[in-house]
Amino acid sequence: MTTSLVPPGTGRTPAAPRAPHALARASSLVVPALDAAVERLDPSLHEPVRHHLAGGGKHVRGGLALVAAAAVGGTEGEAVPGAVAVELVHNYSLLHDDIIDGDRERRHRPTVWARFGEGVAIVAGDALAALAIQVLLDAPTPARMEAARRLADANQAMISGQSADMAFEARARVTVEECLAMERDKTGALLSAACAIGAVLGGADGATAEALGEYGEHLGIAFQAVDDLLGVWGDPSSTGKPVGADLLARKKTLPIAVAFERGDAVADELASIFSRASDQSEVERATLLLERAGVRDAVAAIADEHLRQGLGALDRVELADKPKEELVEVARYVTARDR
Amino acid sequence: MTTSLVPPGTGRTPAAPRAPHALARASSLVVPALDAAVERLDPSLHEPVRHHLAGGGKHVRGGLALVAAAAVGGTEGEAVPGAVAVELVHNYSLLHDDIIDGDRERRHRPTVWARFGEGVAIVAGDALAALAIQVLLDAPTPARMEAARRLADANQAMISGQSADMAFEARARVTVEECLAMERDKTGALLSAACAIGAVLGGADGATAEALGEYGEHLGIAFQAVDDLLGVWGDPSSTGKPVGADLLARKKTLPIAVAFERGDAVADELASIFSRASDQSEVERATLLLERAGVRDAVAAIADEHLRQGLGALDRVELADKPKEELVEVARYVTARDR
Repeated sequence: MTTSLVPPGTGRTPAAPRAPHALARASSLVVPALDAAVERLDPSLHEPVRHHLAGGGKHVRGGLALVAAAAVGGTEGEAVPGAVAVELVHNYSLLHDDIIDGDRERRHRPTVWARFGEGVAIVAGDALAALAIQVLLDAPTPARMEAARRLADANQAMISGQSADMAFEARARVTVEECLAMERDKTGALLSAACAIGAVLGGADGATAEALGEYGEHLGIAFQAVDDLLGVWGDPSSTGKPVGADLLARKKTLPIAVAFERGDAVADELASIFSRASDQSEVERATLLLERAGVRDAVAAIADEHLRQGLGALDRVELADKPKEELVEVARYVTARDR
Repeated sequence: MTTSLVPPGTGRTPAAPRAPHALARASSLVVPALDAAVERLDPSLHEPVRHHLAGGGKHVRGGLALVAAAAVGGTEGEAVPGAVAVELVHNYSLLHDDIIDGDRERRHRPTVWARFGEGVAIVAGDALAALAIQVLLDAPTPARMEAARRLADANQAMISGQSADMAFEARARVTVEECLAMERDKTGALLSAACAIGAVLGGADGATAEALGEYGEHLGIAFQAVDDLLGVWGDPSSTGKPVGADLLARKKTLPIAVAFERGDAVADELASIFSRASDQSEVERATLLLERAGVRDAVAAIADEHLRQGLGALDRVELADKPKEELVEVARYVTARDR
């Protein structure tokens, strides 16, 4: 193999983990195919969609689809339509979520609704969602149909996750179980579908596709748990968000659910901070409170446990060595706490 | 046959055309299946989606799918998943269009975004669009896959039509050809898909499905042309909109495109009215101007021509007698000028 499981340090501390070679290779296949698919959209949507896609991204979902296909003995090329379709669904959800969350910037650039208007962003998102199904059903094979079915199911699960997240805002508390179910739907479902779709297009049997789907689901939950940690303790220079951004926005993410569930003085104090408009000094106090109470470690343990289960799913089935190593590498990369 | 091609008068003038029996029969099959499909959504979306669906509607698209299946020798029951899927796509587009157009009421009830918020309306629309594909791909048959492919294509065409309609707002003039292309995409594509999907699920060969799709497309354009006529000359008590509503909103519908294309004094005067904020008296003058210039008759002739072509497509293939009569009846009903 040409890549190492442990990315080499850059000499600075903390070393930013280097993106696995598999993701760069996948991007070189996915990006041209994604661009070609976007050409099929109404010309009036080319500018807003390209503006959004030009923001970049590592194509983790598309990359997982390609590596999964290779892992089950297929070729990455066979899985390109699946990779494009999951990237399209991911990006449609970003376009709509940015409107819903009122986010005016993404990756330091104006979001589509902020730049082109809400109507354009709604329609552009709808167009990408429809395009995902079109790309898969261009060729009428049973594998493509199975892929489209899994993608529609994952899309519906993402919507459930987004709905739950919105419903959480109106509630005083959420349980860890509810929060994990929301994150499984919102993030795990599409990562799971990406892996399973890649496997199906690569010719996998049912059990192998399920195992890869399970890997993707756990990976998604672990990824989201780490994202929640970074939302409280992340370095603003890496996350692009202010210190304690999620606390300031009073988002009910995993650290908050874990703290509430303790039902002790920490929970009460957090509830009290949550019940009033917080300023930066209160956010700093809440952050310290959460850390001292062991919440940071508890959430990190949840992430580690899902990473472990995800990697365990890969061991249950027969996979080609090198792609399997790449799946492990991608999992470690997207759940790294200094990303 | 139990229904007549010419609906009996009610004794009043003008007689409102009676809804064909085929549509009532179709609703009795489609509504329970649609309700069952909605059960699959995240529980937080049940209330907004049911609020929207409770507004009613005649299920013209679902009805066309069922009658098309019977016309090609299948059963209406076989086409129910297709009918549900096209109704879901129609309703998702209404949820999103109401946000885009800022419409706070539909059928005298608050729209979903006005009642539950924009975020809920965006997500509820996304959920119905995904559900449409799920309903079709529940059973992995070639006919279901073909139906899903046609539905995704129609969805993309609707999005193109909506995008073109939005782009028209920023323009001074549009041609009749551009306007008809927009209406073919925005309205014709889904009516076409409804008929073709019904035919495919009913076991039709390719040529027969194409002919039914062509009937649906022309029907959609004729329906939209009549809708445009009613937007200018419709009776407010039937349309639920004020006299000349489309003129007041300065929408670039077919009558306006026809008038602009004349390039004479009528076009110049209309452009002048369009270029400034119009009041009711100016709208009345524009209405009179359009009528005197023969625009009303010209648009009615376009509607009649598409109705004629749509009915002509039915004569090109072998269809069962009674369902074929019902397709003719539905076509005359949805393009009636006193609806």
